[in-house]
Amino acid sequence: MRKFNKVLVANRGEIAVRIIRTLKDMGIKSVAIFSDVDRESLHTRIADESICIGPRNAKESYLNKVQILNAAIVTGADAIHPGFGFLSENSSFAKMCEIYNIKFIGPTSKVMEKMGNKDISKKIMKEAGIPVVPGSDGVVDSLEAAKVEARNIGYPVIIKARSGGGGKGMRVVKDEGDFNLSFQSAKKEAENAFGDGGLYIEKYIESPRHIEVQILADELGNVVHLSGRDCTIQMNHQKVIEEAPPTAISQALLEELYDISIRAAKAVGYTNAGTIEYLVSSDGKIYFMEMNTRIQVEHPVTEMITGIDIVKEQINIASGNKLEFTQEDIKIKGHSLECRINAYDSENGFLPSSGVIEALNLPGGYGVRIDSSIYQGYNVLPFYDSMLAKIISFGKDREDSINIMLRALDEFVIEGVKTNINFNKKILTDKNFLSNDFSTNFLSDDRIESIIGGGVD
Amino acid sequence: MRKFNKVLVANRGEIAVRIIRTLKDMGIKSVAIFSDVDRESLHTRIADESICIGPRNAKESYLNKVQILNAAIVTGADAIHPGFGFLSENSSFAKMCEIYNIKFIGPTSKVMEKMGNKDISKKIMKEAGIPVVPGSDGVVDSLEAAKVEARNIGYPVIIKARSGGGGKGMRVVKDEGDFNLSFQSAKKEAENAFGDGGLYIEKYIESPRHIEVQILADELGNVVHLSGRDCTIQMNHQKVIEEAPPTAISQALLEELYDISIRAAKAVGYTNAGTIEYLVSSDGKIYFMEMNTRIQVEHPVTEMITGIDIVKEQINIASGNKLEFTQEDIKIKGHSLECRINAYDSENGFLPSSGVIEALNLPGGYGVRIDSSIYQGYNVLPFYDSMLAKIISFGKDREDSINIMLRALDEFVIEGVKTNINFNKKILTDKNFLSNDFSTNFLSDDRIESIIGGGVD
Repeated sequence: MRKFNKVLVANRGEIAVRIIRTLKDMGIKSVAIFSDVDRESLHTRIADESICIGPRNAKESYLNKVQILNAAIVTGADAIHPGFGFLSENSSFAKMCEIYNIKFIGPTSKVMEKMGNKDISKKIMKEAGIPVVPGSDGVVDSLEAAKVEARNIGYPVIIKARSGGGGKGMRVVKDEGDFNLSFQSAKKEAENAFGDGGLYIEKYIESPRHIEVQILADELGNVVHLSGRDCTIQMNHQKVIEEAPPTAISQALLEELYDISIRAAKAVGYTNAGTIEYLVSSDGKIYFMEMNTRIQVEHPVTEMITGIDIVKEQINIASGNKLEFTQEDIKIKGHSLECRINAYDSENGFLPSSGVIEALNLPGGYGVRIDSSIYQGYNVLPFYDSMLAKIISFGKDREDSINIMLRALDEFVIEGVKTNINFNKKILTDKNFLSNDFSTNFLSDDRIESIIGGGVD
Repeated sequence: MRKFNKVLVANRGEIAVRIIRTLKDMGIKSVAIFSDVDRESLHTRIADESICIGPRNAKESYLNKVQILNAAIVTGADAIHPGFGFLSENSSFAKMCEIYNIKFIGPTSKVMEKMGNKDISKKIMKEAGIPVVPGSDGVVDSLEAAKVEARNIGYPVIIKARSGGGGKGMRVVKDEGDFNLSFQSAKKEAENAFGDGGLYIEKYIESPRHIEVQILADELGNVVHLSGRDCTIQMNHQKVIEEAPPTAISQALLEELYDISIRAAKAVGYTNAGTIEYLVSSDGKIYFMEMNTRIQVEHPVTEMITGIDIVKEQINIASGNKLEFTQEDIKIKGHSLECRINAYDSENGFLPSSGVIEALNLPGGYGVRIDSSIYQGYNVLPFYDSMLAKIISFGKDREDSINIMLRALDEFVIEGVKTNINFNKKILTDKNFLSNDFSTNFLSDDRIESIIGGGVD
């Protein structure tokens, strides 16, 4: 079996630690990169080598392609693992790696480029017969044209700004009577916010579940799925709690998602680990959303129920090896949940928090896995993502893994920074969460207050 | 399903924490007991209630039957979980619990009494057709009678003192020419050490593996095994590293051990969790050693490969519930190792160490479970067992779980007390350990120095 000698991990925090751990398990040397404020970070401490790649501003360090590539060349790394965020979905960085003959652990830059463009990826999926959210193909020219599109799609629809983000220039329209006003106000808001009034129209999927499928594809044409994850609990389009396998939709629908996902991966010539995200409407319709061409934050829940180390598979695939298992070999066992522990004050407007961790007691024991990058005395920096740790629980079924997670959250002691530990507990003890009866609106603005005001602690 | 309302955990340290965790998972209230020096211990902190049961001297606290029973009565506990050590194998304590109608989570006091007596338990096993180490039935009367026994058993034999312990009054005899001298010197040594020169003779099993089988038996007559554990790596009859499933003996031999163990459990009317320990000689012969009528330190390796929480099963069984699975339902997956992290200086004569933990970084990530009772700032006391934590690794096979364990040991930072972390690393990187070619003599006196002097770090 082919094996890299040394891999540079182009990331920081929890995911960098997680990747370095698997490199150690595989007997592959690891190189950490760090910005000058990250010298005392855990990923820097546990790697075999570490190299400073710039100042704290991520643009000049963790996003600095040339500097990172230089670091790989200088340290003699055969490959770069990008983790998630930062350069992980940057096809031009992947291309640079290809040119310098340093293996980028992920799909090819060409596939990344295609799947990174929403219009192109939807077009590819549509051509492969995979259901996508119906909508205008690109921007609509006028109010009249938009209305025709909306009628063709069928109400409710959602108007979205081409240059949009954060909900700006976005309007849900329930019926045609409201269309004109909504279109015009969305256009004005988009112009003001982005200097671009371009709008497009999509079918509005009401109360969906977010279901995604984990794919592994080697460079010899073998593709398998590792079942799915339910990431319906989101806030401002950020996942909060994830679970595997999904238990709120039928097995038949899940099998359909798995089949479609394998077809989609094959259609784009996908290699390495990837995730295809879908919305599943309350009446059981499937809509392709996007494909993430990287490891995801929530990958551990899949590892717990399959016993497969996904990062190890990524590295093996990038080395040119054949997948060591077929679809039939992959067995799902039990149920797993993940809670993201973030440094922000969930009792106080979710304001970011930073500072030295004065006391720390991480949970442990039966059914508990901790992926973190913190230690007592560590200074949580305000410059980067607020995620401190992930707690992953594993039980025989959903109820079991919820109970184990609640016990772990109870044991988690952290002083010096504010976190969302209590917020997670409130979600996990919510009546609708427990009965598995919720949609992506679970943490919508009008519900958050009542959950924060919930009865835990 | 029947469920206790409240359970008192009659123990301290790691195992008390481990039991309280499962009580939380099950929604059962927990009561911790503590000696006056243990007020800041983790088990005291995480329990729903805690009650001081005496001074630091274990005889007056953790071994104080009346006081513990009083604590259970005062707090309204339905049941007592004894953990391991302390009162866990004390049949008179179990009997007291029975009288006071507080459920002792373990087998009946009668079964405990029988299995706690080596002569009686061997006799029961022999009658059930289970192979035991051949030997004199009790003490031999004279040198001549001893020699006849030795000849019948067949050399090599081992002479043991009835009141023995710690190797005193013990002699291995390879052939009859050495017998007289060995017998006389053993007798003298036993008389000097214990005031009792009574000796008995047993077959000496050369270079065996220590293999044990985990049993679960409900109170309705259902008995299953959860496969075996290999605990061959021992020092002074203390287990150091344990693994599951055993991989050094054939599957046929393992199946035979499982069959025998179920028969043994049924023969004694065993209930709750128990472990039957065997020696397996290098020529594949099986010898019953003893049955432990309690949860064992190394139970997590079995939990990792079966996905069954053994403490939860103990509690369910004690509640009178039927086992929720049959033998066919139990599937073994992967391989698991456990290292015990003790507060002693393995580089310096294994002297015990105590003091405040100044810095702590527990390992984590894929395939790592931590069962511990320590935190940064915790004062490791010199009065009790030196075990601080257990690291349990889980991988797809033995090589994988060794690599994961080594990575975890590498990450384990503890300052303020000396530990055996480095000693564990040296064992795990030993050539014979890696090739799975060793016996219970692995850490014999003449080998320890070379292992301590090994090349790790």
